[in-house]
Amino acid sequence: MGVSCAGLKASGDPDVLVVLLPKTCQASFLFTDNHFKSGSILYSQKVFRKKGKLRAFVVNSGNANCGTGKEGEVNAKRVAERVAKKLEIDPEEVLVFSTGVIGKPLPMEKVLSAVEEACSDLKPFDLELASRTIGTTDRFPKFGKAKEGNIEVFGFAKGAGMIDPSMATMLAFVFTNAKLSKEELTPLHREVCERTFNSITVDGCKSTNDSFGLIALGEVEADTGTLKRLLEEVSLHLAKKIVEDGEGATRIIKVTVKGASLKIKAKEIARAVASSLLVKTAVYGRDPNWGRILAAAGSTEFPFDPFKVKVYIGGHLLYDGKPCPEAEKEAKRHMEEEKEVDITVDLGEGSEVWTYYSSDLGYEYIRINAEYRT
Amino acid sequence: MGVSCAGLKASGDPDVLVVLLPKTCQASFLFTDNHFKSGSILYSQKVFRKKGKLRAFVVNSGNANCGTGKEGEVNAKRVAERVAKKLEIDPEEVLVFSTGVIGKPLPMEKVLSAVEEACSDLKPFDLELASRTIGTTDRFPKFGKAKEGNIEVFGFAKGAGMIDPSMATMLAFVFTNAKLSKEELTPLHREVCERTFNSITVDGCKSTNDSFGLIALGEVEADTGTLKRLLEEVSLHLAKKIVEDGEGATRIIKVTVKGASLKIKAKEIARAVASSLLVKTAVYGRDPNWGRILAAAGSTEFPFDPFKVKVYIGGHLLYDGKPCPEAEKEAKRHMEEEKEVDITVDLGEGSEVWTYYSSDLGYEYIRINAEYRT
Repeated sequence: MGVSCAGLKASGDPDVLVVLLPKTCQASFLFTDNHFKSGSILYSQKVFRKKGKLRAFVVNSGNANCGTGKEGEVNAKRVAERVAKKLEIDPEEVLVFSTGVIGKPLPMEKVLSAVEEACSDLKPFDLELASRTIGTTDRFPKFGKAKEGNIEVFGFAKGAGMIDPSMATMLAFVFTNAKLSKEELTPLHREVCERTFNSITVDGCKSTNDSFGLIALGEVEADTGTLKRLLEEVSLHLAKKIVEDGEGATRIIKVTVKGASLKIKAKEIARAVASSLLVKTAVYGRDPNWGRILAAAGSTEFPFDPFKVKVYIGGHLLYDGKPCPEAEKEAKRHMEEEKEVDITVDLGEGSEVWTYYSSDLGYEYIRINAEYRT
Repeated sequence: MGVSCAGLKASGDPDVLVVLLPKTCQASFLFTDNHFKSGSILYSQKVFRKKGKLRAFVVNSGNANCGTGKEGEVNAKRVAERVAKKLEIDPEEVLVFSTGVIGKPLPMEKVLSAVEEACSDLKPFDLELASRTIGTTDRFPKFGKAKEGNIEVFGFAKGAGMIDPSMATMLAFVFTNAKLSKEELTPLHREVCERTFNSITVDGCKSTNDSFGLIALGEVEADTGTLKRLLEEVSLHLAKKIVEDGEGATRIIKVTVKGASLKIKAKEIARAVASSLLVKTAVYGRDPNWGRILAAAGSTEFPFDPFKVKVYIGGHLLYDGKPCPEAEKEAKRHMEEEKEVDITVDLGEGSEVWTYYSSDLGYEYIRINAEYRT
């Protein structure tokens, strides 16, 4: 990989990352489904659809290359072509990602010369430096590894908790040394994404630049079960780091819905509780407010029996078809003492379980987002 | 109507309202679709389904009668029966509404004696006093009237902007002197509700107690077009008062999506923009951040052409397929000077229009909701 500086970040820190893979690899990419997309995403989606293989990718941070008219896609193409030329590889195997401020054209001269610089000084892979280079408002780098036998998984990400379309956004790249066909890779990728990056929420805003890539380096044969477990481990670690870095966050909120008759029901109810502003502000206030949890749980399209449902915070039973006020003191202590607040809703009707991660909502979120651009 | 005091509000202000109609009337009620409902709603829904007519209703504020187990519904029934006995009317024509804190049983002795007191001292209808009595965290009463020819519409409501399931919630009652059959009333009610109470959002949380009633006193024949216009006028006035009273709100946000090919598309995109935390915090910061508006607009299931869309704030064109930075200064001035911030998104593809109302999101919201219960 190579890093360089195009001057896109006010800090002057490295803001261009080029990753060259040892060979052309199988890969799978999931992009934001926002209809207002970055030019880089528009370009990368199109080019990846052609061959579906990856040799290199480039990320610039500090500028989202979004909302600048049709030139956004043209500029992404120019970046990819410059990388391909410099590294002497197929331009259709190069993807481009951008993250940062919306609505400003990429300063192409600076970007292209930084891209050339990064390409001419390739060094061994450094997950921490990669994460730092693509980070924007991130307070710390996000990277992780897992290994079992000869199967290895590693990855890096950026995202300051909030899915912020103006200082967009979340990017994650996970690699494995496993050999996988396209047919194996895509469903595996989707499944891992559902339980990890698609089960976190900070402000419920869908970004214009979100992307999650899974790249199979194709070196070893791997047992699917083990590989899936390792991929989930690394991806969940990265996803939780994003939530932890949520702007203004003081707590991670872990919402588990169990005892559901359907997986989708468990997921939707967990999402509703994790997304509720009233739950998030209650956690910020360390208030074991089970009424808000149940009101959020009840707001989806999926009904449940309000006289059978149970609500726990930190394992303390607060509602069991009716209030259990004696548990409130212990639940409050859990919220005060633990960095991760554990909310469990048991619907008491089946065996499906889903966990969603969120962060609390405090004054700092308002400060950052009300005062950010002006 | 009669008012009295059951001591449910810390302030000691009146908290029980009984409204006796001159005769049994046609009415239509829309209740929250939250699956975790107040016992009062569970009772009123059941009893109203039987006869579908209304002679009287009673509202208590300060206690939501929610999350207290099966006794909630039993208590609502006892309240209705006491009103019916005292006023010598059919208990199946009496509905019960509650609003306030979740999770505390109604103190039935006090409530029943306050209900009796209210029934024994009935006075002419007073919209302002009615609104004050049912209010909880409301900073001002919400009521309105409209008249054209001999058709009259009037109503009152409560709701402190936020749809807060713990200090629940929104209640609205709108009356007309028009004669309407059940078959005319219900669709008219739904249509009016879609463009008014169903087109406001403060924090996106669905309450356990929300109810909107439309009562036809049946005195005069009315032209449907005129009647609908008057009903929308009064209902929208009440809905906007709720948004204006949003806890911590400093601005009303009016989001209009026009040029859409489908009504549902205009509505969903307007809802997405009005609900976006990033848009709401930007308005609080008086930042004409069109990037956040478009990112929110793009987050629904409905696609649009990002190179055809236009974004205006206060009539100033900020994005026209590409940024128009020269308009930002005037747009910012509009946000600083006007109480109602006017955001328009023109999709440029059709003729459907929808308007959604919201409020901005500031520090005060966090303070109230993080510190409310503890």
